[in-house]
Amino acid sequence: ILSKRIVVLPGDGIGPEVCQEAVRALKAVADKFGHEFVFDYQLMGACAIDATGDPLPAATLEACRAADAVLLGAIGDPKYDNNPSAQVRPEQGLLRLRKSLGLYANIRPVTAYDRLLEHSPLKKDRIQGADMLIFRELTGGIYFGEKGRNADGSAYDNCTYSRFEIERIAHRAFRAAETRRGKLTLVDKANVLETSRLWREVVQDLALQYPKVLVDYLFVDNAAMQIILNPRQFDVILTENMFGDIISDEASVIAGSLGLLPSASVGDEVALFEPIHGSYPQAKGKGIANPIATILSAAMLLEHFGLQEEANSVKKAVDNALEQGVLTPELNAKSPYTTEQVGSFVAYGI
Amino acid sequence: ILSKRIVVLPGDGIGPEVCQEAVRALKAVADKFGHEFVFDYQLMGACAIDATGDPLPAATLEACRAADAVLLGAIGDPKYDNNPSAQVRPEQGLLRLRKSLGLYANIRPVTAYDRLLEHSPLKKDRIQGADMLIFRELTGGIYFGEKGRNADGSAYDNCTYSRFEIERIAHRAFRAAETRRGKLTLVDKANVLETSRLWREVVQDLALQYPKVLVDYLFVDNAAMQIILNPRQFDVILTENMFGDIISDEASVIAGSLGLLPSASVGDEVALFEPIHGSYPQAKGKGIANPIATILSAAMLLEHFGLQEEANSVKKAVDNALEQGVLTPELNAKSPYTTEQVGSFVAYGI
Ligand SMILES: CC(C)[C@H](C(=O)O)[C@@H](O)C(=O)O
Ligand SMILES: CC(C)[C@H](C(=O)O)[C@@H](O)C(=O)O
Repeated sequence: ILSKRIVVLPGDGIGPEVCQEAVRALKAVADKFGHEFVFDYQLMGACAIDATGDPLPAATLEACRAADAVLLGAIGDPKYDNNPSAQVRPEQGLLRLRKSLGLYANIRPVTAYDRLLEHSPLKKDRIQGADMLIFRELTGGIYFGEKGRNADGSAYDNCTYSRFEIERIAHRAFRAAETRRGKLTLVDKANVLETSRLWREVVQDLALQYPKVLVDYLFVDNAAMQIILNPRQFDVILTENMFGDIISDEASVIAGSLGLLPSASVGDEVALFEPIHGSYPQAKGKGIANPIATILSAAMLLEHFGLQEEANSVKKAVDNALEQGVLTPELNAKSPYTTEQVGSFVAYGI
Repeated sequence: ILSKRIVVLPGDGIGPEVCQEAVRALKAVADKFGHEFVFDYQLMGACAIDATGDPLPAATLEACRAADAVLLGAIGDPKYDNNPSAQVRPEQGLLRLRKSLGLYANIRPVTAYDRLLEHSPLKKDRIQGADMLIFRELTGGIYFGEKGRNADGSAYDNCTYSRFEIERIAHRAFRAAETRRGKLTLVDKANVLETSRLWREVVQDLALQYPKVLVDYLFVDNAAMQIILNPRQFDVILTENMFGDIISDEASVIAGSLGLLPSASVGDEVALFEPIHGSYPQAKGKGIANPIATILSAAMLLEHFGLQEEANSVKKAVDNALEQGVLTPELNAKSPYTTEQVGSFVAYGI
């Protein structure tokens, strides 16, 4: 019997709905396998601004630090997006949380599900069998460099990377490649950016320690094409923060729905798990949000706890939902199930 | 009778081969319409480094400044790409040329050709009818900010944008939207970057001057998905340098071949025309490079000279090649034509 404390950050938009189903799955796992999971709900994002004025209240950060893992729904609200001069915005909470918890590696598996190939905008013969794992650096680069306005009204964002920041995530990516198909692709813009040249140097150096891994280098513009033209060529992709944001969302089209893709953000201490989709405010409260990405994020959380059998039982239950077509409208337009129905079906199958 | 001086920069890899066919088309236009085009060949890129040690020799820059237009093939050589500490690299020549000539707006039309839909990795029903025009800022942002190494070995690249840099390209994009379907989408990352917030502010301000244009804002990660999920939603896309590099190469998959897409880089003086593909060194000298992107770049050059009828005759000849299947192997695997055969067919049809 294992006892774990999980902080849940439902966030904004559809975040609370999808979190509820992931928690349902975790509770089913606890029941079946005799573990004790304590769920501690905390505020982050626009809801936290509304309640406290701060997108990441001190109590939330404290709770996360003390937790064994964090499960996040989604954050963001359109009222901040089109107001470029807003001083406080939901994303600041997420960025500060990543930085404060030292979550330097965001890991996103992207798989073409055989059963959902028809839903992808890509032709079946291009994507069938595609299976990649994207390592996006998450606490450095242009996201966290100095930014502001100059006296002349111009704006700036500085991008910096240290050898150490690159090494620690690169080691993780190399180790993952060793357990997979043995290929690592560094995505950068080394023909233009100095930070990219440092990434390339560090990866070239580390490659000597991983003789079984084949290393490949792609400029980000080319990578943005190759991911669509021939996704099967990729095994592990390693990239910096900004490029990872773009490339990983782009790669999600392979799966046929953003609503299927989980992610883990890890560092040296507590880890955080979240779907890659956003808060999708237009869908809030309609019961149409796909909870699978969040449920699969919960499965990654179980793996992080070393509970592989438990994680597998969640993944099997999800596979079963895919097989039986127990899916939200974007994947089953004819006889759609609600968010809660999908979540209950999965929990019941655990 | 019009007399124009065109500098040709064949560059590296397949650059010289594709330029030869574009020049052939321009010569056919000159013959048919009674113009005089003088072609002045100059070195730039890896070939210029080999010959002079400088990727953009002074003579080349002088010639470009004095020209009425510049036609570029492609530059780049793998021997520089995997050597992050090379001090001199071909791309520096291109970047310095863009900056020196003030080519602040890179304009890339992306169209789904009905005849080539089957070649796209995207499903036909998603892309049929897609027709967008991408305005990428080309002389600012992280490409041209300060970059280097700090004493502690970390690397940095700074991104800056001034109001003026944004306004001048935004005006061009708005005016283009007015003559098209009246929609402009700004692609940025305003939820994270200060420069993006300035882009959003400036575009919101200018929008008041273009009441007929519907303005839309997309975060770059979302845009990278939407371009694949639903490319028909886009009319004019406006974005900064780095995002434009990624997004426009990604969008090229819609056309079914990178070998079809032309671009114009314009400023307040001389303009430059080039295919969006790279130097593709593996294909050099094999006669398999598709010259159409460069020929269509020559058509954009003619439009820039105000020669619309001439440009149309080039485009019609290209359409005819597409219709008749007079195409290089990537688009006609069964009975492929060589680079020169495609070029001659087009020139003959002018
Ligand atoms: C919400 C936003 C700040 C965030 C990011 O850009 O990192 C999101 O797009 C993501 O990928 O998690
Ligand atoms: C060659 C390279 C420097 C260039 C760029 O990044 O601008 C190219 O990718 C392009 O898009 O023209």
